[in-house]
Amino acid sequence: MSGNQSTKRLWRDVRVFDGHDTLPEPMAVIVEGERIARLVPMRKFDASRATDCEEMARGGVMTPGLVDCHTHLVFGGSRADEFESRLEGVSYEEIARQGGGILSTVRATREASEEALFDAALSRLQALMNDGVTTVEIKSGYGLTVEDELKMLRVARRLGDALPVRVVTTLLGAHALPPEFKNDSDGYIDLVCHEMIPAAAAQGLADAVDVFCEKIAFSVAQCERVFEAAEAHGLPIKAHVEQLSNLGGTAMAARHGALSADHIEYLDEAGVAALHEAGSVAVLLPGAFHTLGETKQPPIATLREAGVPMALATDANPGSSPLFMPTLMLNLGCVLFRLTPREALAGMTAHGARALGRPELGRIQEGAPADLCLWNIDTAAELAYAVQPGRLRQRIFNGRLEGGISHEH
Amino acid sequence: MSGNQSTKRLWRDVRVFDGHDTLPEPMAVIVEGERIARLVPMRKFDASRATDCEEMARGGVMTPGLVDCHTHLVFGGSRADEFESRLEGVSYEEIARQGGGILSTVRATREASEEALFDAALSRLQALMNDGVTTVEIKSGYGLTVEDELKMLRVARRLGDALPVRVVTTLLGAHALPPEFKNDSDGYIDLVCHEMIPAAAAQGLADAVDVFCEKIAFSVAQCERVFEAAEAHGLPIKAHVEQLSNLGGTAMAARHGALSADHIEYLDEAGVAALHEAGSVAVLLPGAFHTLGETKQPPIATLREAGVPMALATDANPGSSPLFMPTLMLNLGCVLFRLTPREALAGMTAHGARALGRPELGRIQEGAPADLCLWNIDTAAELAYAVQPGRLRQRIFNGRLEGGISHEH
Ligand SMILES: [Zn+2]
Ligand SMILES: [Zn+2]
Repeated sequence: MSGNQSTKRLWRDVRVFDGHDTLPEPMAVIVEGERIARLVPMRKFDASRATDCEEMARGGVMTPGLVDCHTHLVFGGSRADEFESRLEGVSYEEIARQGGGILSTVRATREASEEALFDAALSRLQALMNDGVTTVEIKSGYGLTVEDELKMLRVARRLGDALPVRVVTTLLGAHALPPEFKNDSDGYIDLVCHEMIPAAAAQGLADAVDVFCEKIAFSVAQCERVFEAAEAHGLPIKAHVEQLSNLGGTAMAARHGALSADHIEYLDEAGVAALHEAGSVAVLLPGAFHTLGETKQPPIATLREAGVPMALATDANPGSSPLFMPTLMLNLGCVLFRLTPREALAGMTAHGARALGRPELGRIQEGAPADLCLWNIDTAAELAYAVQPGRLRQRIFNGRLEGGISHEH
Repeated sequence: MSGNQSTKRLWRDVRVFDGHDTLPEPMAVIVEGERIARLVPMRKFDASRATDCEEMARGGVMTPGLVDCHTHLVFGGSRADEFESRLEGVSYEEIARQGGGILSTVRATREASEEALFDAALSRLQALMNDGVTTVEIKSGYGLTVEDELKMLRVARRLGDALPVRVVTTLLGAHALPPEFKNDSDGYIDLVCHEMIPAAAAQGLADAVDVFCEKIAFSVAQCERVFEAAEAHGLPIKAHVEQLSNLGGTAMAARHGALSADHIEYLDEAGVAALHEAGSVAVLLPGAFHTLGETKQPPIATLREAGVPMALATDANPGSSPLFMPTLMLNLGCVLFRLTPREALAGMTAHGARALGRPELGRIQEGAPADLCLWNIDTAAELAYAVQPGRLRQRIFNGRLEGGISHEH
């Protein structure tokens, strides 16, 4: 049975969290090529029938590779100086006068070459991968011109080509109003609808289209126009909604069949019902909640009762969530939002994948792509309970033990 | 000038955070043997006079090796199950009935062999070291018998012998009331004073003595008895005080010349004044604040005005702070307690060292021990601003580039 190259790989005696829950018994997991081939309880496992397998490891907890379904990983500059100024007592007004805030990131992103953006994002992406990520969404949204938005998306695509990680790209042209369109937000939305979306679609650069629906960004009506343009180009949609107030963007996004509604701290019961009906995912982002010192929690209990799948993501970005560590989000999801460890982990695996329209990912089941993490822990709950870099023992991408990992034990 | 072995090491063009602030100019740093030999601004640096140096790196930010001055790294068991139960809605009463809480850690620690405790603590300590720690304090306090407390302290000492890190040990016999002394806390304090402290002192196992002064632990009068016993054996003291209420333990500890008062969320102005007068350090522990969902912040502004040095530590422990990541504490210190990045970093370097009675550590200055970290960042503030494992480029312990590091870029 042993060919000239083994493509069967075996993990023995692992506790498997399958994307929804921990399986009741220790398992043997066999990967063949790029897929999970067999999942067998150890008490039924016949080692003599697996002699053609390369044994990869014994023991530990195996989870799907983590899915970070909401990030802004590609950006120019840093906002560390602004973070420091604020804590040293400089007022928001003064920081704005000095050109701080999101527009400082827009400026730095426009000025940066594609190469420089790639290099800066690479180390951040590597940090996510070292912490278990095998699928990551990356949004544009700091270019705010057709050319600069496309530049960001090209960088995101190139990151996926260069590293063993699946990159899903999202065009977020409607992220903020660029200075050139001051007092003409409808004009900017025209640009997004008539130029950005068509160009991104024609070049195959965007897997989805996102909007920021908020008083400080774009209205529900403007976001709906963006969604209609996305639909016309066959692109799925998602939305930053109800983060700072309840405008009703979620219900509108749900009506358009959004993959996900993200943030949703201020979402009400009607909004939750709309998500449920549409089959959309609620994406929870405790990193921004933490960094901004928010106190209004998303309606977890209502979402839970309604059976709305809850995803959890880093929201990695230079302003409101400079936190490039998915397992930290598991902890923040539990401590700040009172998710259970099981919900938090499902949020970064099966539900995260669903928020990207990729339900075959984030699961450990026969036939699924073999994106896997093996952790040096005893129970899956430990991942959310303790924040401790270095517990990732193996990271398997598409069936292969892959780089982006620096901790071998 | 080149001998048969180079003991001079050179870093060029580094931004130096010296333990208190970032030096105004890029520097050359020369280490000779175990000490920092020279600190020279680059514009005055004459490379031709450093040809006998081994060049270690160029660029980046150099800080003192991090000093984590308050941890409970040695313990048996895990409390992940309890963390999960609480989030799944099990009441505190029920968890207590099931034997949860600190006494479950005491049970597991008593049951564990010295070897098992060592192995479990080793991976946690390695996580701290991979994140930049070169000096760590480790407390006992989960044994609560003479033999089990000494066992914990021996494990702590062995960790320091086995790894390139300075371990400072603290006897925390007065951490919780063991079940054998239920309704006889004075009897337990007798044991601490008359047996534990003398034994730890005789065997050279404790560098300091600590107490937990709180309604749920020990009274101010009981803690004072412990301090008197420590003084009688020549051991410096420190205290867990004013974490959950204001009992006045800080002022009492200050009167006894405590190295530090730790937690101090409920400290009042008189307490701050007492610390100032005694020259004690205020140790801030945002990890427990985060994990317990506390809202009462320590009196940072008052401490700042009074000029009380503020240290920052992980409080790494299985119950209230299972967070084994010092750079995360820099972020939590800024976000939760509104420290400036400079204060946070001084808290984990110069002030942390002072809280351990080791003011020669945590500094980059000529003549100081060469415990250093070189980070892949542009400004020291980035360490507190972003949470991103993998930025530590070099960790130098006692003049040598040392293990406990897995991220080489
Ligand atoms: Zn976002
Ligand atoms: Zn403590």
